[in-house]
Amino acid sequence: METQPFPDRLAEAVGRKRSQLVVGLDPRLDVLPMELRGEAVLGRAAAASAVARFCKGIVDAVGPYVVAVKPQAAFFEALGSDGMHALEEVCAYARSIGLLVILDAKRGDVGSTSRAYVAAYLEPNEEGIPVADAITASPYLGLDAVEPFLAACRRHGSGVFFLVRTSNAGAADVQDAMLSDGRPLWQHLATLVHEWGQPLVGEGGLSSVGAVVGATLPRAVSEARRLMPQTPLLLPGVGAQGATPADVARAFTSGPASAVVTASRSVIFAFRDTEEDWRVAAAGAAERLSTQVWAASGW
Amino acid sequence: METQPFPDRLAEAVGRKRSQLVVGLDPRLDVLPMELRGEAVLGRAAAASAVARFCKGIVDAVGPYVVAVKPQAAFFEALGSDGMHALEEVCAYARSIGLLVILDAKRGDVGSTSRAYVAAYLEPNEEGIPVADAITASPYLGLDAVEPFLAACRRHGSGVFFLVRTSNAGAADVQDAMLSDGRPLWQHLATLVHEWGQPLVGEGGLSSVGAVVGATLPRAVSEARRLMPQTPLLLPGVGAQGATPADVARAFTSGPASAVVTASRSVIFAFRDTEEDWRVAAAGAAERLSTQVWAASGW
Repeated sequence: METQPFPDRLAEAVGRKRSQLVVGLDPRLDVLPMELRGEAVLGRAAAASAVARFCKGIVDAVGPYVVAVKPQAAFFEALGSDGMHALEEVCAYARSIGLLVILDAKRGDVGSTSRAYVAAYLEPNEEGIPVADAITASPYLGLDAVEPFLAACRRHGSGVFFLVRTSNAGAADVQDAMLSDGRPLWQHLATLVHEWGQPLVGEGGLSSVGAVVGATLPRAVSEARRLMPQTPLLLPGVGAQGATPADVARAFTSGPASAVVTASRSVIFAFRDTEEDWRVAAAGAAERLSTQVWAASGW
Repeated sequence: METQPFPDRLAEAVGRKRSQLVVGLDPRLDVLPMELRGEAVLGRAAAASAVARFCKGIVDAVGPYVVAVKPQAAFFEALGSDGMHALEEVCAYARSIGLLVILDAKRGDVGSTSRAYVAAYLEPNEEGIPVADAITASPYLGLDAVEPFLAACRRHGSGVFFLVRTSNAGAADVQDAMLSDGRPLWQHLATLVHEWGQPLVGEGGLSSVGAVVGATLPRAVSEARRLMPQTPLLLPGVGAQGATPADVARAFTSGPASAVVTASRSVIFAFRDTEEDWRVAAAGAAERLSTQVWAASGW
Protein backbone atom coordinates (compact mmCIF):
# COMPACT_ATOMS: atom_id res chain seq x y z
CA MET A 1 0.00 0.00 0.00
CA GLU A 2 1.28 3.45 -0.92
CA THR A 3 1.34 5.60 2.17
CA GLN A 4 3.18 8.67 0.87
CA PRO A 5 0.64 11.15 -0.53
CA PHE A 6 0.55 11.51 -4.31
CA PRO A 7 1.65 15.19 -4.42
CA ASP A 8 4.75 14.35 -2.36
CA ARG A 9 5.63 11.48 -4.69
CA LEU A 10 5.06 13.80 -7.65
CA ALA A 11 7.26 16.50 -6.12
CA GLU A 12 10.03 14.00 -5.47
CA ALA A 13 9.96 12.93 -9.14
CA VAL A 14 9.85 16.53 -10.39
CA GLY A 15 12.86 17.48 -8.27
CA ARG A 16 14.88 14.40 -9.19
CA LYS A 17 14.22 14.62 -12.94
CA ARG A 18 13.95 18.40 -13.27
CA SER A 19 10.84 17.76 -15.34
CA GLN A 20 7.16 18.67 -15.09
CA LEU A 21 6.20 16.75 -18.19
CA VAL A 22 3.56 14.03 -18.41
CA VAL A 23 3.23 12.15 -21.68
CA GLY A 24 -0.26 11.10 -22.67
CA LEU A 25 -0.65 7.60 -24.11
CA ASP A 26 -3.42 7.93 -26.73
CA PRO A 27 -2.74 4.88 -28.90
CA ARG A 28 -4.88 5.57 -31.97
CA LEU A 29 -4.64 2.52 -34.21
CA ASP A 30 -4.73 4.50 -37.45
CA VAL A 31 -1.58 6.44 -36.64
CA LEU A 32 0.57 3.74 -35.05
CA PRO A 33 4.02 3.22 -36.61
CA MET A 34 3.78 1.14 -39.79
CA GLU A 35 5.55 -1.88 -38.24
CA LEU A 36 2.74 -2.13 -35.65
CA ARG A 37 -0.17 -0.93 -37.76
CA GLY A 38 0.06 -3.99 -40.00
CA GLU A 39 -0.50 -6.23 -37.01
CA ALA A 40 -3.43 -4.17 -35.81
CA VAL A 41 -5.62 -5.14 -38.76
CA LEU A 42 -5.51 -8.83 -37.79
CA GLY A 43 -8.31 -8.43 -35.24
CA ARG A 44 -8.84 -7.02 -31.79
CA ALA A 45 -6.45 -9.24 -29.82
CA ALA A 46 -3.62 -8.50 -32.25
CA ALA A 47 -4.48 -4.80 -32.20
CA ALA A 48 -4.39 -4.75 -28.39
CA SER A 49 -1.03 -6.47 -28.45
CA ALA A 50 0.29 -3.87 -30.92
CA VAL A 51 -1.04 -1.09 -28.71
CA ALA A 52 0.69 -2.54 -25.65
CA ARG A 53 3.99 -2.84 -27.51
CA PHE A 54 3.69 0.72 -28.81
CA CYS A 55 2.90 2.16 -25.37
CA LYS A 56 5.69 0.23 -23.66
CA GLY A 57 8.11 1.42 -26.33
CA ILE A 58 7.01 5.00 -25.70
CA VAL A 59 7.31 4.53 -21.93
CA ASP A 60 10.90 3.33 -22.35
CA ALA A 61 11.72 6.17 -24.74
CA VAL A 62 10.29 9.07 -22.74
CA GLY A 63 10.98 7.61 -19.27
CA PRO A 64 14.10 9.70 -18.57
CA TYR A 65 12.30 12.98 -19.39
CA VAL A 66 8.88 12.64 -17.77
CA VAL A 67 7.52 12.23 -14.26
CA ALA A 68 4.39 10.35 -15.27
CA VAL A 69 2.49 8.85 -18.17
CA LYS A 70 -1.21 9.44 -18.70
CA PRO A 71 -2.91 6.56 -20.52
CA GLN A 72 -6.22 7.62 -22.07
CA ALA A 73 -8.67 4.86 -21.07
CA ALA A 74 -10.95 5.33 -24.10
CA PHE A 75 -8.37 4.14 -26.62
CA PHE A 76 -7.89 0.93 -24.67
CA GLU A 77 -11.63 0.43 -24.07
CA ALA A 78 -12.12 0.71 -27.84
CA LEU A 79 -10.40 -2.69 -28.05
CA GLY A 80 -12.72 -4.26 -25.49
CA SER A 81 -11.47 -6.67 -22.86
CA ASP A 82 -8.27 -7.22 -24.89
CA GLY A 83 -7.67 -3.49 -24.73
CA MET A 84 -8.27 -3.39 -20.98
CA HIS A 85 -5.72 -6.15 -20.59
CA ALA A 86 -3.26 -4.02 -22.57
CA LEU A 87 -4.05 -1.04 -20.31
CA GLU A 88 -3.27 -3.07 -17.19
CA GLU A 89 -0.02 -4.28 -18.78
CA VAL A 90 1.09 -0.79 -19.84
CA CYS A 91 0.28 0.75 -16.45
CA ALA A 92 2.13 -2.00 -14.56
CA TYR A 93 5.11 -1.60 -16.88
CA ALA A 94 5.29 2.17 -16.40
CA ARG A 95 5.12 1.82 -12.62
CA SER A 96 7.78 -0.91 -12.70
CA ILE A 97 10.29 1.49 -14.24
CA GLY A 98 9.52 4.15 -11.64
CA LEU A 99 7.03 6.38 -13.45
CA LEU A 100 3.80 7.62 -11.91
CA VAL A 101 0.63 6.66 -13.79
CA ILE A 102 -2.23 9.14 -14.13
CA LEU A 103 -5.16 7.31 -15.70
CA ASP A 104 -7.15 9.69 -17.91
CA ALA A 105 -10.61 8.19 -17.44
CA LYS A 106 -12.78 11.19 -16.46
CA ARG A 107 -14.98 8.92 -14.37
CA GLY A 108 -17.70 10.22 -12.08
CA ASP A 109 -20.95 8.75 -10.82
CA VAL A 110 -23.03 8.50 -7.65
CA GLY A 111 -21.14 7.41 -4.53
CA SER A 112 -21.63 3.63 -4.67
CA THR A 113 -20.58 3.60 -8.33
CA SER A 114 -17.60 5.91 -7.83
CA ARG A 115 -16.47 3.43 -5.18
CA ALA A 116 -16.41 0.74 -7.86
CA TYR A 117 -14.27 2.99 -10.10
CA VAL A 118 -11.88 3.47 -7.18
CA ALA A 119 -11.76 -0.31 -6.72
CA ALA A 120 -11.06 -0.67 -10.43
CA TYR A 121 -8.17 1.75 -10.74
CA LEU A 122 -6.84 3.09 -7.42
CA GLU A 123 -7.12 0.29 -4.85
CA PRO A 124 -4.19 -2.13 -4.60
CA ASN A 125 -4.92 -5.43 -6.36
CA GLU A 126 -4.09 -8.94 -5.14
CA GLU A 127 -0.37 -8.19 -5.57
CA GLY A 128 -0.73 -4.96 -3.61
CA ILE A 129 -0.39 -2.75 -6.68
CA PRO A 130 -3.02 -0.33 -8.02
CA VAL A 131 -3.52 0.15 -11.77
CA ALA A 132 -2.81 3.86 -11.42
CA ASP A 133 -1.39 6.38 -8.95
CA ALA A 134 -3.97 8.99 -9.87
CA ILE A 135 -7.07 9.37 -12.03
CA THR A 136 -8.97 12.15 -13.77
CA ALA A 137 -12.60 12.52 -12.67
CA SER A 138 -15.68 14.63 -13.30
CA PRO A 139 -17.03 16.81 -10.48
CA TYR A 140 -20.49 17.26 -12.07
CA LEU A 141 -22.28 15.03 -9.51
CA GLY A 142 -21.04 16.91 -6.44
CA LEU A 143 -19.45 16.00 -3.12
CA ASP A 144 -21.05 12.65 -2.25
CA ALA A 145 -20.11 11.40 -5.72
CA VAL A 146 -16.46 12.49 -5.50
CA GLU A 147 -15.99 11.40 -1.87
CA PRO A 148 -14.82 7.86 -2.81
CA PHE A 149 -11.97 9.42 -4.81
CA LEU A 150 -11.05 11.59 -1.80
CA ALA A 151 -11.16 8.46 0.39
CA ALA A 152 -8.66 6.78 -1.98
CA CYS A 153 -6.35 9.78 -1.53
CA ARG A 154 -6.53 9.32 2.25
CA ARG A 155 -6.22 5.53 2.30
CA HIS A 156 -4.00 4.63 -0.63
CA GLY A 157 -1.97 7.78 -1.26
CA SER A 158 -3.80 8.23 -4.57
CA GLY A 159 -4.27 11.46 -6.47
CA VAL A 160 -7.34 12.71 -8.32
CA PHE A 161 -7.56 15.49 -10.91
CA PHE A 162 -11.05 16.95 -11.32
CA LEU A 163 -12.13 18.55 -14.58
CA VAL A 164 -12.39 22.28 -13.98
CA ARG A 165 -11.79 24.12 -17.27
CA THR A 166 -11.03 21.91 -20.25
CA SER A 167 -9.09 22.95 -23.34
CA ASN A 168 -11.67 22.12 -26.04
CA ALA A 169 -13.73 24.72 -27.91
CA GLY A 170 -17.10 23.46 -26.64
CA ALA A 171 -16.04 23.79 -23.01
CA ALA A 172 -17.47 27.30 -23.04
CA ASP A 173 -21.01 25.90 -23.61
CA VAL A 174 -21.16 24.68 -20.03
CA GLN A 175 -18.04 25.59 -18.07
CA ASP A 176 -18.26 29.30 -18.87
CA ALA A 177 -21.97 29.58 -17.98
CA MET A 178 -22.23 32.80 -15.97
CA LEU A 179 -23.44 32.38 -12.39
CA SER A 180 -25.61 34.86 -10.51
CA ASP A 181 -22.57 35.96 -8.48
CA GLY A 182 -20.75 37.05 -11.65
CA ARG A 183 -18.36 34.11 -11.89
CA PRO A 184 -18.28 31.51 -14.66
CA LEU A 185 -19.24 28.00 -13.54
CA TRP A 186 -15.69 26.68 -13.76
CA GLN A 187 -14.56 29.13 -11.08
CA HIS A 188 -17.29 27.82 -8.77
CA LEU A 189 -15.91 24.34 -9.40
CA ALA A 190 -12.38 25.58 -8.76
CA THR A 191 -13.54 26.79 -5.35
CA LEU A 192 -15.16 23.42 -4.59
CA VAL A 193 -12.03 21.53 -5.68
CA HIS A 194 -9.91 23.78 -3.46
CA GLU A 195 -12.21 23.06 -0.49
CA TRP A 196 -12.30 19.31 -1.15
CA GLY A 197 -8.51 19.30 -1.27
CA GLN A 198 -7.77 21.25 1.90
CA PRO A 199 -7.84 18.24 4.27
CA LEU A 200 -5.52 16.41 1.87
CA VAL A 201 -2.54 18.77 1.71
CA GLY A 202 0.73 16.80 1.98
CA GLU A 203 4.05 17.67 3.58
CA GLY A 204 5.17 19.66 0.58
CA GLY A 205 2.16 21.99 0.78
CA LEU A 206 0.27 20.54 -2.17
CA SER A 207 -2.99 18.60 -2.06
CA SER A 208 -3.79 15.11 -3.34
CA VAL A 209 -6.75 16.75 -5.05
CA GLY A 210 -5.75 18.29 -8.36
CA ALA A 211 -7.51 20.04 -11.22
CA VAL A 212 -7.48 19.81 -15.00
CA VAL A 213 -7.15 23.25 -16.59
CA GLY A 214 -6.57 23.71 -20.31
CA ALA A 215 -3.25 25.33 -21.19
CA THR A 216 -4.89 26.97 -24.20
CA LEU A 217 -6.37 29.66 -21.92
CA PRO A 218 -3.44 31.39 -20.17
CA ARG A 219 -5.75 33.75 -18.27
CA ALA A 220 -7.79 30.85 -16.92
CA VAL A 221 -4.56 29.15 -15.84
CA SER A 222 -3.55 32.22 -13.81
CA GLU A 223 -7.01 32.54 -12.28
CA ALA A 224 -7.10 28.80 -11.49
CA ARG A 225 -3.75 29.11 -9.70
CA ARG A 226 -5.13 31.98 -7.62
CA LEU A 227 -8.37 30.16 -6.70
CA MET A 228 -6.62 26.85 -5.96
CA PRO A 229 -3.22 27.78 -4.47
CA GLN A 230 -2.45 24.27 -3.16
CA THR A 231 -3.97 22.25 -5.99
CA PRO A 232 -1.71 20.45 -8.48
CA LEU A 233 -2.78 21.51 -11.97
CA LEU A 234 -2.79 19.09 -14.89
CA LEU A 235 -2.42 21.20 -18.01
CA PRO A 236 -3.32 19.68 -21.39
CA GLY A 237 -3.14 21.64 -24.60
CA VAL A 238 0.57 22.32 -25.03
CA GLY A 239 1.85 21.07 -28.38
CA ALA A 240 -0.72 19.77 -30.85
CA GLN A 241 -3.45 22.03 -29.42
CA GLY A 242 -1.32 25.16 -29.81
CA ALA A 243 -0.38 26.35 -26.32
CA THR A 244 3.27 27.03 -25.51
CA PRO A 245 5.25 26.47 -22.29
CA ALA A 246 5.24 30.23 -21.75
CA ASP A 247 1.44 30.18 -21.68
CA VAL A 248 1.43 28.10 -18.52
CA ALA A 249 4.33 29.67 -16.62
CA ARG A 250 1.97 31.16 -14.03
CA ALA A 251 0.74 27.71 -13.05
CA PHE A 252 4.06 27.03 -11.32
CA THR A 253 3.98 29.88 -8.81
CA SER A 254 2.96 27.45 -6.03
CA GLY A 255 6.13 25.37 -6.50
CA PRO A 256 8.03 23.35 -9.09
CA ALA A 257 5.57 20.41 -8.75
CA SER A 258 2.44 22.52 -8.45
CA ALA A 259 1.60 21.84 -12.09
CA VAL A 260 2.41 19.34 -14.79
CA VAL A 261 2.10 19.79 -18.53
CA THR A 262 0.65 16.91 -20.51
CA ALA A 263 1.42 16.36 -24.17
CA SER A 264 0.24 13.39 -26.19
CA ARG A 265 0.18 13.50 -29.99
CA SER A 266 3.11 15.92 -30.32
CA VAL A 267 5.32 13.42 -28.47
CA ILE A 268 4.05 9.92 -29.17
CA PHE A 269 3.44 10.54 -32.86
CA ALA A 270 6.49 12.80 -33.34
CA PHE A 271 7.88 10.21 -35.80
CA ARG A 272 5.30 11.27 -38.35
CA ASP A 273 7.15 14.54 -38.97
CA THR A 274 10.65 13.08 -39.12
CA GLU A 275 12.63 10.25 -40.67
CA GLU A 276 13.55 8.93 -37.23
CA ASP A 277 12.56 5.71 -35.52
CA TRP A 278 9.34 6.30 -33.55
CA ARG A 279 11.06 5.74 -30.19
CA VAL A 280 13.92 8.11 -31.01
CA ALA A 281 11.47 10.76 -32.22
CA ALA A 282 9.34 10.48 -29.05
CA ALA A 283 12.40 10.67 -26.78
CA GLY A 284 13.63 13.76 -28.62
CA ALA A 285 10.26 15.50 -28.45
CA ALA A 286 9.87 14.69 -24.74
CA GLU A 287 13.37 15.90 -23.91
CA ARG A 288 12.86 19.20 -25.76
CA LEU A 289 9.43 19.90 -24.28
CA SER A 290 10.53 18.94 -20.78
CA THR A 291 13.45 21.38 -20.99
CA GLN A 292 11.22 24.16 -22.33
CA VAL A 293 8.60 23.69 -19.60
CA TRP A 294 11.26 23.59 -16.87
CA ALA A 295 12.74 26.83 -18.16
CA ALA A 296 9.32 28.49 -18.43
CA SER A 297 8.38 27.39 -14.90
CA GLY A 298 11.21 29.51 -13.51
CA TRP A 299 12.52 26.80 -11.15
CA MET B 1 -25.93 -2.01 -38.68
CA GLU B 2 -29.03 -0.72 -36.87
CA THR B 3 -30.81 1.78 -39.04
CA GLN B 4 -33.98 2.33 -37.02
CA PRO B 5 -33.45 5.18 -34.55
CA PHE B 6 -33.13 4.21 -30.90
CA PRO B 7 -36.29 6.04 -29.70
CA ASP B 8 -38.38 4.19 -32.28
CA ARG B 9 -36.94 0.85 -31.19
CA LEU B 10 -37.60 1.82 -27.58
CA ALA B 11 -41.19 2.82 -28.37
CA GLU B 12 -41.79 -0.46 -30.17
CA ALA B 13 -40.60 -2.39 -27.11
CA VAL B 14 -42.64 -0.25 -24.70
CA GLY B 15 -45.81 -0.76 -26.74
CA ARG B 16 -45.30 -4.49 -27.16
CA LYS B 17 -44.46 -5.21 -23.53
CA ARG B 18 -46.59 -2.50 -21.91
CA SER B 19 -43.56 -1.68 -19.79
CA GLN B 20 -41.38 1.36 -19.25
CA LEU B 21 -39.02 -0.40 -16.89
CA VAL B 22 -35.26 -0.70 -17.26
CA VAL B 23 -33.41 -2.90 -14.81
CA GLY B 24 -29.95 -1.76 -13.78
CA LEU B 25 -27.25 -4.42 -13.58
CA ASP B 26 -25.03 -3.33 -10.66
CA PRO B 27 -23.32 -6.61 -9.77
CA ARG B 28 -21.76 -5.82 -6.40
CA LEU B 29 -19.72 -8.84 -5.36
CA ASP B 30 -20.50 -8.52 -1.66
CA VAL B 31 -24.24 -8.89 -2.15
CA LEU B 32 -24.35 -11.60 -4.83
CA PRO B 33 -26.46 -14.65 -4.00
CA MET B 34 -24.58 -17.04 -1.70
CA GLU B 35 -24.21 -19.73 -4.38
CA LEU B 36 -22.22 -17.25 -6.53
CA ARG B 37 -20.50 -15.29 -3.78
CA GLY B 38 -18.45 -18.32 -2.77
CA GLU B 39 -16.98 -18.51 -6.24
CA ALA B 40 -16.20 -14.81 -6.30
CA VAL B 41 -13.54 -15.11 -3.59
CA LEU B 42 -11.40 -17.41 -5.76
CA GLY B 43 -9.84 -14.51 -7.65
CA ARG B 44 -10.77 -12.02 -10.31
CA ALA B 45 -11.43 -14.41 -13.20
CA ALA B 46 -13.76 -16.50 -11.03
CA ALA B 47 -15.46 -13.37 -9.72
CA ALA B 48 -16.03 -12.10 -13.28
CA SER B 49 -17.50 -15.46 -14.23
CA ALA B 50 -19.84 -15.33 -11.21
CA VAL B 51 -20.88 -11.78 -12.17
CA ALA B 52 -21.65 -12.86 -15.73
CA ARG B 53 -23.75 -15.79 -14.52
CA PHE B 54 -25.61 -13.56 -12.07
CA CYS B 55 -26.35 -10.90 -14.69
CA LYS B 56 -27.46 -13.42 -17.29
CA GLY B 57 -29.74 -15.04 -14.72
CA ILE B 58 -31.26 -11.63 -13.95
CA VAL B 59 -31.65 -10.87 -17.67
CA ASP B 60 -33.57 -14.12 -18.14
CA ALA B 61 -35.71 -13.49 -15.06
CA VAL B 62 -36.70 -9.89 -15.76
CA GLY B 63 -36.76 -10.17 -19.57
CA PRO B 64 -40.54 -10.42 -19.91
CA TYR B 65 -41.14 -7.30 -17.80
CA VAL B 66 -38.52 -4.82 -19.00
CA VAL B 67 -37.64 -3.05 -22.25
CA ALA B 68 -33.95 -2.73 -21.53
CA VAL B 69 -31.19 -3.54 -19.11
CA LYS B 70 -28.68 -0.97 -17.94
CA PRO B 71 -25.32 -2.52 -17.00
CA GLN B 72 -23.27 -0.20 -14.77
CA ALA B 73 -19.79 -0.23 -16.33
CA ALA B 74 -17.97 0.51 -13.06
CA PHE B 75 -18.86 -2.80 -11.43
CA PHE B 76 -17.42 -4.69 -14.40
CA GLU B 77 -14.34 -2.45 -14.64
CA ALA B 78 -13.67 -3.22 -10.97
CA LEU B 79 -12.80 -6.75 -12.14
CA GLY B 80 -10.34 -5.51 -14.76
CA SER B 81 -10.11 -7.08 -18.19
CA ASP B 82 -11.94 -10.18 -16.89
CA GLY B 83 -14.80 -7.93 -15.86
CA MET B 84 -14.85 -6.20 -19.24
CA HIS B 85 -15.11 -9.61 -20.86
CA ALA B 86 -18.09 -10.35 -18.61
CA LEU B 87 -19.65 -7.01 -19.60
CA GLU B 88 -19.36 -7.87 -23.29
CA GLU B 89 -20.87 -11.30 -22.64
CA VAL B 90 -23.80 -9.93 -20.62
CA CYS B 91 -24.59 -7.20 -23.15
CA ALA B 92 -24.50 -9.65 -26.07
CA TYR B 93 -26.72 -12.05 -24.15
CA ALA B 94 -29.32 -9.38 -23.35
CA ARG B 95 -29.43 -8.24 -26.98
CA SER B 96 -29.72 -11.85 -28.16
CA ILE B 97 -32.97 -12.27 -26.24
CA GLY B 98 -34.39 -9.06 -27.65
CA LEU B 99 -33.66 -6.54 -24.91
CA LEU B 100 -32.17 -3.12 -25.52
CA VAL B 101 -28.92 -2.41 -23.70
CA ILE B 102 -28.26 1.02 -22.18
CA LEU B 103 -24.68 1.07 -20.95
CA ASP B 104 -24.38 3.24 -17.84
CA ALA B 105 -20.87 4.54 -18.34
CA LYS B 106 -21.24 8.33 -17.97
CA ARG B 107 -18.37 8.85 -20.39
CA GLY B 108 -17.41 12.25 -21.74
CA ASP B 109 -14.16 13.71 -23.03
CA VAL B 110 -12.81 15.92 -25.81
CA GLY B 111 -13.95 15.02 -29.31
CA SER B 112 -11.17 12.67 -30.41
CA THR B 113 -11.48 10.74 -27.16
CA SER B 114 -15.28 10.62 -27.21
CA ARG B 115 -14.91 9.07 -30.66
CA ALA B 116 -12.92 6.25 -29.06
CA TYR B 117 -15.70 5.73 -26.49
CA VAL B 118 -18.19 5.52 -29.36
CA ALA B 119 -15.94 2.96 -31.08
CA ALA B 120 -15.79 1.01 -27.83
CA TYR B 121 -19.49 0.78 -27.09
CA LEU B 122 -21.76 1.98 -29.91
CA GLU B 123 -20.11 1.07 -33.19
CA PRO B 124 -20.84 -2.38 -34.62
CA ASN B 125 -17.97 -4.81 -34.01
CA GLU B 126 -16.51 -7.38 -36.40
CA GLU B 127 -19.77 -9.35 -36.22
CA GLY B 128 -21.80 -6.24 -36.94
CA ILE B 129 -23.08 -5.93 -33.37
CA PRO B 130 -22.43 -3.04 -30.98
CA VAL B 131 -21.89 -3.64 -27.25
CA ALA B 132 -24.82 -1.38 -26.43
CA ASP B 133 -27.81 0.32 -28.06
CA ALA B 134 -27.38 3.45 -25.97
CA ILE B 135 -24.97 4.96 -23.44
CA THR B 136 -25.08 7.50 -20.65
CA ALA B 137 -22.68 10.43 -21.09
CA SER B 138 -21.58 13.63 -19.41
CA PRO B 139 -22.30 16.96 -21.12
CA TYR B 140 -19.74 18.93 -19.07
CA LEU B 141 -17.29 19.36 -21.97
CA GLY B 142 -19.81 20.92 -24.36
CA LEU B 143 -20.85 20.41 -27.97
CA ASP B 144 -17.62 19.39 -29.71
CA ALA B 145 -17.12 16.75 -27.01
CA VAL B 146 -20.62 15.27 -27.31
CA GLU B 147 -20.74 15.44 -31.12
CA PRO B 148 -19.28 11.91 -31.59
CA PHE B 149 -22.20 10.52 -29.56
CA LEU B 150 -24.64 12.47 -31.75
CA ALA B 151 -22.87 11.08 -34.83
CA ALA B 152 -23.41 7.53 -33.51
CA CYS B 153 -27.13 8.31 -33.20
CA ARG B 154 -27.18 9.38 -36.86
CA ARG B 155 -25.01 6.57 -38.21
CA HIS B 156 -25.77 3.55 -36.07
CA GLY B 157 -29.24 4.24 -34.67
CA SER B 158 -27.70 4.59 -31.21
CA GLY B 159 -29.14 6.49 -28.28
CA VAL B 160 -27.37 8.70 -25.74
CA PHE B 161 -28.62 9.90 -22.36
CA PHE B 162 -26.83 13.00 -21.05
CA LEU B 163 -26.62 13.68 -17.33
CA VAL B 164 -28.84 16.66 -16.61
CA ARG B 165 -30.06 16.44 -12.99
CA THR B 166 -28.88 13.42 -11.06
CA SER B 167 -30.64 11.85 -8.06
CA ASN B 168 -27.81 12.01 -5.51
CA ALA B 169 -27.64 14.49 -2.62
CA GLY B 170 -24.43 16.18 -3.80
CA ALA B 171 -25.90 16.98 -7.22
CA ALA B 172 -27.03 20.32 -5.82
CA ASP B 173 -23.37 21.38 -5.31
CA VAL B 174 -22.93 21.84 -9.04
CA GLN B 175 -26.13 21.16 -10.97
CA ASP B 176 -28.22 23.61 -8.94
CA ALA B 177 -25.67 26.45 -9.20
CA MET B 178 -27.76 29.53 -9.97
CA LEU B 179 -27.03 31.24 -13.27
CA SER B 180 -27.18 34.96 -13.93
CA ASP B 181 -30.46 34.49 -15.82
CA GLY B 182 -32.14 33.02 -12.73
CA ARG B 183 -32.08 29.37 -13.80
CA PRO B 184 -30.14 26.59 -12.11
CA LEU B 185 -27.31 25.14 -14.22
CA TRP B 186 -29.15 21.90 -14.91
CA GLN B 187 -31.91 23.77 -16.73
CA HIS B 188 -29.29 25.38 -18.99
CA LEU B 189 -28.06 21.87 -19.74
CA ALA B 190 -31.62 20.71 -20.37
CA THR B 191 -31.93 23.44 -23.00
CA LEU B 192 -28.66 22.38 -24.63
CA VAL B 193 -29.70 18.71 -24.64
CA HIS B 194 -33.04 19.67 -26.23
CA GLU B 195 -31.20 21.63 -28.95
CA TRP B 196 -28.67 18.85 -29.59
CA GLY B 197 -31.54 16.39 -29.97
CA GLN B 198 -33.74 18.35 -32.35
CA PRO B 199 -32.07 17.11 -35.58
CA LEU B 200 -32.38 13.55 -34.25
CA VAL B 201 -36.12 13.25 -33.67
CA GLY B 202 -37.40 9.91 -34.99
CA GLU B 203 -40.70 8.94 -36.62
CA GLY B 204 -42.43 8.60 -33.27
CA GLY B 205 -41.64 12.19 -32.31
CA LEU B 206 -38.90 11.39 -29.81
CA SER B 207 -35.19 12.15 -30.16
CA SER B 208 -32.22 9.80 -30.04
CA VAL B 209 -30.78 12.24 -27.51
CA GLY B 210 -32.11 11.56 -24.03
CA ALA B 211 -31.50 12.93 -20.55
CA VAL B 212 -30.91 11.48 -17.10
CA VAL B 213 -33.15 13.13 -14.50
CA GLY B 214 -33.41 11.83 -10.95
CA ALA B 215 -36.88 10.56 -9.99
CA THR B 216 -36.28 11.73 -6.44
CA LEU B 217 -37.15 15.30 -7.48
CA PRO B 218 -40.70 15.24 -8.89
CA ARG B 219 -40.68 18.99 -9.57
CA ALA B 220 -37.45 18.72 -11.55
CA VAL B 221 -38.95 15.85 -13.54
CA SER B 222 -41.94 18.03 -14.55
CA GLU B 223 -39.70 20.96 -15.41
CA ALA B 224 -37.35 18.69 -17.39
CA ARG B 225 -40.33 17.37 -19.38
CA ARG B 226 -41.36 20.96 -20.19
CA LEU B 227 -37.85 22.06 -21.24
CA MET B 228 -37.18 18.88 -23.28
CA PRO B 229 -40.54 17.86 -24.77
CA GLN B 230 -39.08 15.38 -27.28
CA THR B 231 -36.28 13.99 -25.12
CA PRO B 232 -36.53 10.47 -23.70
CA LEU B 233 -35.97 10.70 -19.96
CA LEU B 234 -34.05 8.05 -18.04
CA LEU B 235 -35.30 8.22 -14.46
CA PRO B 236 -33.20 6.60 -11.71
CA GLY B 237 -34.18 6.77 -8.05
CA VAL B 238 -37.41 4.74 -7.93
CA GLY B 239 -37.18 1.93 -5.37
CA ALA B 240 -34.07 1.83 -3.20
CA GLN B 241 -33.60 5.61 -3.43
CA GLY B 242 -37.14 6.32 -2.26
CA ALA B 243 -39.07 7.72 -5.25
CA THR B 244 -42.39 6.14 -6.24
CA PRO B 245 -43.94 5.58 -9.68
CA ALA B 246 -46.41 8.39 -8.91
CA ASP B 247 -43.47 10.80 -8.50
CA VAL B 248 -42.53 10.41 -12.16
CA ALA B 249 -45.99 10.31 -13.76
CA ARG B 250 -45.46 13.73 -15.35
CA ALA B 251 -42.46 12.42 -17.29
CA PHE B 252 -44.78 10.43 -19.56
CA THR B 253 -46.83 13.31 -20.93
CA SER B 254 -44.87 13.21 -24.21
CA GLY B 255 -45.92 9.59 -24.87
CA PRO B 256 -45.73 6.11 -23.37
CA ALA B 257 -42.06 5.74 -24.39
CA SER B 258 -41.03 9.30 -23.55
CA ALA B 259 -39.51 8.12 -20.28
CA VAL B 260 -38.19 4.94 -18.71
CA VAL B 261 -37.78 4.21 -15.03
CA THR B 262 -34.60 2.46 -13.97
CA ALA B 263 -34.39 0.34 -10.83
CA SER B 264 -31.34 -1.65 -9.80
CA ARG B 265 -30.89 -2.84 -6.22
CA SER B 266 -34.63 -3.12 -5.47
CA VAL B 267 -34.96 -5.63 -8.31
CA ILE B 268 -31.69 -7.51 -8.69
CA PHE B 269 -31.14 -7.93 -4.95
CA ALA B 270 -34.85 -8.46 -4.12
CA PHE B 271 -33.96 -11.96 -2.88
CA ARG B 272 -32.34 -10.46 0.20
CA ASP B 273 -35.75 -9.55 1.63
CA THR B 274 -37.49 -12.85 0.82
CA GLU B 275 -37.00 -16.58 1.09
CA GLU B 276 -37.29 -16.94 -2.68
CA ASP B 277 -34.71 -17.96 -5.24
CA TRP B 278 -32.87 -14.86 -6.48
CA ARG B 279 -34.25 -15.20 -10.02
CA VAL B 280 -37.82 -15.63 -8.82
CA ALA B 281 -37.48 -12.65 -6.48
CA ALA B 282 -36.08 -10.44 -9.26
CA ALA B 283 -38.82 -11.46 -11.69
CA GLY B 284 -41.50 -10.72 -9.11
CA ALA B 285 -40.04 -7.31 -8.24
CA ALA B 286 -39.70 -6.39 -11.93
CA GLU B 287 -43.24 -7.46 -12.74
CA ARG B 288 -44.71 -5.47 -9.84
CA LEU B 289 -42.72 -2.32 -10.55
CA SER B 290 -43.39 -2.50 -14.27
CA THR B 291 -47.14 -2.71 -13.63
CA GLN B 292 -47.03 0.18 -11.16
CA VAL B 293 -45.08 2.43 -13.52
CA TRP B 294 -47.38 1.60 -16.45
CA ALA B 295 -50.41 2.48 -14.34
CA ALA B 296 -48.83 5.71 -13.10
CA SER B 297 -47.86 6.72 -16.63
CA GLY B 298 -51.52 6.91 -17.59
CA TRP B 299 -51.11 5.00 -20.87
